[in-house]
Amino acid sequence: MVTFDPRLTDRPGLEGQRRAQLVEVMQAALMAVDPAEAVRRHMHRQGDQLIVNGRTYPLNQYRRIIVVGAGKADAAMTQAVEEILGDRLTEGAVNVKYAHSLPTRRVVLTEAAHPVPDAAGVQGSARIAQLLEGANESDLVICLISGGGSALMTLPAAGITLDDLQGLTSALLRAGANIVEINTIRKHLDRLKGGKLARLAAPATVISLILSDVVGNPLDAIASGPTVPDDSTFADAWRLLERYELVGHIPEAIERELRRGLDGETAENPAAGDPAFARVQNVIVASNDLAAAAAERHARSLGMHTLLLSTYVEGEAREVARVLAAIARQIAATDSPVQRPACVIVGGETTVTLRGEGRGGRNQEMALAAAIAIDGLADVTIACLATDGTDGPTDASGALAEGSTAARARALGMDPWDYIARNDAYRFFEPLGDLLMTGPTQTNVNDLAFVVVW
Amino acid sequence: MVTFDPRLTDRPGLEGQRRAQLVEVMQAALMAVDPAEAVRRHMHRQGDQLIVNGRTYPLNQYRRIIVVGAGKADAAMTQAVEEILGDRLTEGAVNVKYAHSLPTRRVVLTEAAHPVPDAAGVQGSARIAQLLEGANESDLVICLISGGGSALMTLPAAGITLDDLQGLTSALLRAGANIVEINTIRKHLDRLKGGKLARLAAPATVISLILSDVVGNPLDAIASGPTVPDDSTFADAWRLLERYELVGHIPEAIERELRRGLDGETAENPAAGDPAFARVQNVIVASNDLAAAAAERHARSLGMHTLLLSTYVEGEAREVARVLAAIARQIAATDSPVQRPACVIVGGETTVTLRGEGRGGRNQEMALAAAIAIDGLADVTIACLATDGTDGPTDASGALAEGSTAARARALGMDPWDYIARNDAYRFFEPLGDLLMTGPTQTNVNDLAFVVVW
Repeated sequence: MVTFDPRLTDRPGLEGQRRAQLVEVMQAALMAVDPAEAVRRHMHRQGDQLIVNGRTYPLNQYRRIIVVGAGKADAAMTQAVEEILGDRLTEGAVNVKYAHSLPTRRVVLTEAAHPVPDAAGVQGSARIAQLLEGANESDLVICLISGGGSALMTLPAAGITLDDLQGLTSALLRAGANIVEINTIRKHLDRLKGGKLARLAAPATVISLILSDVVGNPLDAIASGPTVPDDSTFADAWRLLERYELVGHIPEAIERELRRGLDGETAENPAAGDPAFARVQNVIVASNDLAAAAAERHARSLGMHTLLLSTYVEGEAREVARVLAAIARQIAATDSPVQRPACVIVGGETTVTLRGEGRGGRNQEMALAAAIAIDGLADVTIACLATDGTDGPTDASGALAEGSTAARARALGMDPWDYIARNDAYRFFEPLGDLLMTGPTQTNVNDLAFVVVW
Repeated sequence: MVTFDPRLTDRPGLEGQRRAQLVEVMQAALMAVDPAEAVRRHMHRQGDQLIVNGRTYPLNQYRRIIVVGAGKADAAMTQAVEEILGDRLTEGAVNVKYAHSLPTRRVVLTEAAHPVPDAAGVQGSARIAQLLEGANESDLVICLISGGGSALMTLPAAGITLDDLQGLTSALLRAGANIVEINTIRKHLDRLKGGKLARLAAPATVISLILSDVVGNPLDAIASGPTVPDDSTFADAWRLLERYELVGHIPEAIERELRRGLDGETAENPAAGDPAFARVQNVIVASNDLAAAAAERHARSLGMHTLLLSTYVEGEAREVARVLAAIARQIAATDSPVQRPACVIVGGETTVTLRGEGRGGRNQEMALAAAIAIDGLADVTIACLATDGTDGPTDASGALAEGSTAARARALGMDPWDYIARNDAYRFFEPLGDLLMTGPTQTNVNDLAFVVVW
C-alpha cells in the first residue's frame, strides 16, 4: 500500500479527519492500479494452462516463453509474471527507468534514461529485438508495456542516432506538438514501435500486458504501440512536420528516413489486419479509469456522493483547475449536481506552459491554481495527484488545496499569484505542509484530481 | 421569442432534427431571462400595492416614484416598470447602450457607449445623480441594473476625467486583471458605484432590480453594485494596482484620488450595515443559473438526461472547451456520468487571450476549440451561446461544433488549427453555416454552453 507523508493529515479536528479521508480515497485509487496486482488480475495459471482475460494458453505447447517490454512500471510487472510462470519462463529482456530496478530471476532488467532515451535503453532494446528475431511459431512472447515505454524502448532505424531523435523531440516540444503527435512521427523512425515489435515476434504467439498512461487508453499510442496495428503512415508523419513548420529544421537523417518512407523505400508500419497480429492478444491491465472507479467506490464507502466526471481531461493545468473550482462553487451554492458531502473525480493529463523558473509539476500547479480559485470558500478540498508519485521534476506527487490555503499562505508572507506566475507550486505548498508525498508508486496511469465539498 | 437563423437547422435528417432540438433548448434558456418577463416575475401591482418578491410597498405613501438605472437590458426593463406603475411613475433617467433604446413614456433613456464610457453616459449619470439628490424619505426610487451598467453609469469623482478612467482600464486589462478586480478599483473613483447610488438616494426607499451578468451573482460586482454595500476599501484598490505593478503607470489624477482615500480625505464606500441601505431592497430578477435551469428543464422535456454542472465557469475559452470535450468523450465511451441522450449544461463567462488578428468572440472560440477536441467523435454536439446575442465584436451569438465539424471544414480547405491560432472563429464557422445568429436578445446573463451526446 502506498503511504502518504503523515504531515498532510496531522491537523487538528475536522481538517485532519477530512484530509485522512481523502488520503484513503487516493490510496484506494493507487491500490487498484498496482502493477503486480494488475498483472495478477488479468493473468493467472491453472496447472499448465495460462489464462489471460479468459483466453487459455496451454504452456506445454510452447518451446520457449520469452518476456520483453519497457516502462516505468515494468519491474513490478516482470516480478508478477515471473512469479506466475516460475520455471516455465525461459528468458527475457525488459527496460526500466534508472533506479526503478527490482530483483528478478530470469528476466534481465536494463536500466535506462527517461524521458530522453540514452544508449543503455538502445542497447536493451537491441537485446529485445534479438530475442524476438529468434522467436518462432512454437514460442510464446509476453510483452509488458507501461508508461515511459516509448522512450525506454528506443531502437532507431538504420542511419538515425539518438542525437537525431533528441533533436526531433525537442523541436516538436518547442513547437507545441502533443505526445500523440510526437509518437506518430517517432513510430516511423524506430524498429519496434508502431506494431513492429509484433512483426518481429511473428509467427510467435504474443500476449501484451499494457498498463496505460495515455488519456483514453488508445492502444496504438501507449508506449507507441509496439504490439498494436499502426494505421498512421509516413505521409501522416510528414504532415505533422509540415503543420509545425519543422521541415528543414530537424536533423537531416530523420528527414531522409521519412522521405524514404514517402517514396516507398521503407515499409509502412503493419496496419490493422496485418498478419503480424494474427497471434497477438493485447490486454490493458490497468488504466486511469480503473483508478478513478476505485476512488469513486471508496469515496462512496465513506459516505460521499460521487461524480466521476471524466477520465479524458487534458488542457492547461491552471485552466482545468478553474473549471474544477467552478464545479466546487456550484456544489457549495446549490448542493448540486452532487449532494454534499460530494466527491467529484476527474482523470487525465494536463499540461503546463512554463512561464517562470519555479519548481513544480502539473498537479502541483493545478492545485495552486485551484487554491486561488477557491480562496475563501469554506468546506472545499481539491487534491491533484500524479499516480506515479513523481509530479514533474519533484519528489512530490501533487498537492492539496483548500479554501483556507491562500489565506494560510499569505499569513506566511506568500502571495499565491506570485508563485503561480513563476510556476513555483512546490515552494508554495512545501512550507504549508500540503504536498502529497508518496515516493515513487511503481505505477503510472496519469493523474487524478478530486474535488470534495464537505 | 428569440429566433435563430434557420440556416443552422436546415440540414437533412437526423442532423437537422438534433440541431432543432438544441435550438429549442437555447430558446427556452433565453426566454427565461427575458428582461421584461424577469421584471414582471418579481414585481407586480395589486391596486395601490406594489409587491416585489413578497415585500409590499403602498404606492400612495410615496410623493414621487423615480426610476434610475443603467445597463444593456435596461430599455426592456424600463418598459416593464412603466407598464406596471403607469401614472404613478413620476420621472426617471436610465442609461442604455447605443442602438438599444426602446419607446418609453416618462423615463428618459440616454444612449451611451459601452464598453468604454463616453460623455453621453456621464451626462446621463449626472442626471441620475441629480434626481437622487432631490429625493427624500417620502420618495421611492426604482433602480434598474443590468449588464454593462458599470460602464454606462459612470460619474467620475471630482478631478478625474473619462480619459483618465480609460487609461486605467486599458492598463488593467493589459495587465490581465479580471472584471471584478477592475471594478474594485473603479468603485473608488466614481460617485455612484460601490453603494454610493444608495447613499445618494437615502433616505428614500430604494428597490433595485438586478439582471445579473456576473458569474455567481455577487451583488456588489454587478454593475459595480450601486445599491449594494461595498466592503472593499481604498487599501484594497491600491493593493490591486500594486499586484499588477501599475503604480506610476496610470493617470496621475487616479493615483491622487486613491491616495486621498488612503489618507482618509475621501470617505470609504458605504459598507455592510451602513444606514444608506436601511431602506434598500436588492432583487436579482434574472441570472445565468435561471437560464441554465430553464435549459435543463426543456432538455429533459425533450427526453434528454441532463447534468447542470456549474454556472460559475471561468477560464480561457479554448481550455474550458477541452474540458467539455473530455466530458463528451466520457459519456460517449461509458454512458456516464449521464446516460445518453445526455445534455450537460455549463454557464459562466470565459476569456480569450488574443493571439491573432482574427474575428470572433469567446463563445465562437470555445466552439472552435471544441470542434478540434471532438474531431471525429460521432453523435456529439457542443454549442456555445452568448445570451446577449453578441459574442465579441461580431453579429453572431456563438457557434455550434460537432464531431464532423473539423472534417467539413477541411473539405472546404480550412484547417481548424490555423483559424484558432489567429482567433478567427467567425470566419471558420460562417462558411459552415454553424454560427448561432439571433441578433441582440435585449438580455445579458453571460454565456451558456451545451454538451449533447445523442
